[in-house]
Amino acid sequence: MGALHTGHASLIRAAKSSCDQVVVSIFVNPTQFGPNEDYSRYPRTFDADCALAESAGATAIFAPSVEDLYPNGPDSTFVEVEGLSTRLDGASRPGHFRGVATVVSKLLIAAEPDRAFFGQKDAAQVAVLRRMTTDLLLPVEIVVCPIVRDPDGLALSSRNIYLSAAERSQALVLSRTVHQIESLAAQGERRATVLVEAANQLFAAVPEVRIDYIELVDWATLLPVEVAAPGTLFAVAAYVGKTRLIDNTILGSDAVLEHLRRVEENALEERDQEGYSLHPQTNEEARRCEKEASTALRRVPMNRF
Amino acid sequence: MGALHTGHASLIRAAKSSCDQVVVSIFVNPTQFGPNEDYSRYPRTFDADCALAESAGATAIFAPSVEDLYPNGPDSTFVEVEGLSTRLDGASRPGHFRGVATVVSKLLIAAEPDRAFFGQKDAAQVAVLRRMTTDLLLPVEIVVCPIVRDPDGLALSSRNIYLSAAERSQALVLSRTVHQIESLAAQGERRATVLVEAANQLFAAVPEVRIDYIELVDWATLLPVEVAAPGTLFAVAAYVGKTRLIDNTILGSDAVLEHLRRVEENALEERDQEGYSLHPQTNEEARRCEKEASTALRRVPMNRF
Repeated sequence: MGALHTGHASLIRAAKSSCDQVVVSIFVNPTQFGPNEDYSRYPRTFDADCALAESAGATAIFAPSVEDLYPNGPDSTFVEVEGLSTRLDGASRPGHFRGVATVVSKLLIAAEPDRAFFGQKDAAQVAVLRRMTTDLLLPVEIVVCPIVRDPDGLALSSRNIYLSAAERSQALVLSRTVHQIESLAAQGERRATVLVEAANQLFAAVPEVRIDYIELVDWATLLPVEVAAPGTLFAVAAYVGKTRLIDNTILGSDAVLEHLRRVEENALEERDQEGYSLHPQTNEEARRCEKEASTALRRVPMNRF
Repeated sequence: MGALHTGHASLIRAAKSSCDQVVVSIFVNPTQFGPNEDYSRYPRTFDADCALAESAGATAIFAPSVEDLYPNGPDSTFVEVEGLSTRLDGASRPGHFRGVATVVSKLLIAAEPDRAFFGQKDAAQVAVLRRMTTDLLLPVEIVVCPIVRDPDGLALSSRNIYLSAAERSQALVLSRTVHQIESLAAQGERRATVLVEAANQLFAAVPEVRIDYIELVDWATLLPVEVAAPGTLFAVAAYVGKTRLIDNTILGSDAVLEHLRRVEENALEERDQEGYSLHPQTNEEARRCEKEASTALRRVPMNRF
């Protein structure tokens, strides 16, 4: 989007550490804003963005105009991820993920990166984009980087500049809740109803903040779970004044990573044992093994990076 | 799709004449069929298709499974061209062009061709795909090849095998109408109402054939025109028994080509006079000229090939 902050800088640095060329897109995308949202007042700080991107290691800035990306206006092509696009932020912001999937598919097709870096803060967006790139056969690896927080815990967001001092203090209920749910899960609490109720109680203490959603979902499908498990996404969205903020965590990350490492190892081992063929279509067994290995790899959680 | 015939062979030969590698996709795409359409009975002739493709010059066949292209089932990503997708065949077949745009975007992203060859017979499809590739910034040139007809005039179609002998004879009203409208237009008749009425009268003589649409539209936007002009598409769709057939022509093709050649020449000449820069972003005049040249090129009609 734009209005780059330290969170974006961490994505650029991550990209720089594993890629020769790092292209940063700066584009406030009109199609991902609803009619009553903040498209016109969204912060635009192009010169500062360029300076931040360069100092973090960007080798190019891609800053198209609206006409460049939408040459045909409303008679345009849109990319929509069915199902996923209507969950979490997609439920609160109809059309939002349609705009996101559309613009990101254009950026990926135009720039042809080997890897694309996104922040875990937009967890639902990551789920939508992973599905989109898989479905459209885009040859890109989606890399997800951890949430970057201010010292008081608030997750960095371009929209934080909208907050008054009082609102900023109220907004801390989001990160406090995320932290508390992590603790409860680490202590063994797995029931979604109990975890969500605990979150609701923390929000009840700050009545100025209006909950948009508090959910425990599978991080890949964004469908609600009844029992939290490794890989479950706890996500929250709330209005602080007129500003909508989000935060999240993936429960049991370490356990997930260990579990996945084992699944992957087993799949690869089995594949080796049963004879992997370069022409798997001629070998039913090899196809099955390859599918299992690829399923295991796809299960790697968002914060693996 | 599949069930390749001489029309497809002409696309393959055209590709072979200008490309080193020619990949032919064979995939009966479920998402472009409506619930009451002929997906299950659509002819599947894989071995014959491969033989035909090879003899026409194909260097590779891409024949994915449904699971390869739709790994996530209905929770999938779809590509939709707003507006255009609801016109002509899109009006009669809701969702059809959404399926077409989705599968073609996947095929183009997977195969990364420099050029993709389509038949003018599916004129609305070509308009949708041109818009889709422009909007998604896909680096591919869409090349459109002329309609191939049997000696009796019937446009080749995989669905022609559905026709009984009697239906086949009735179906000739489509090509007869297309030919008649070409003649009337060549004689100077430009009024859409008159041309469409003439077409209706030809169909009235064959009551077994049920008209789906008879339209005069701009070939790029598919919007109706009142006065036919060079580049106007005359398109017809009709049911012969249970089989839906289509046919079309672009009016004034020779005049269009001549006009466009001049527009293009002028634009290029103007660009040369005003000083074309390799870095047009530093030169307002050069940008304008380049835009005009590119607009002129985009106006080249479908049957230029």
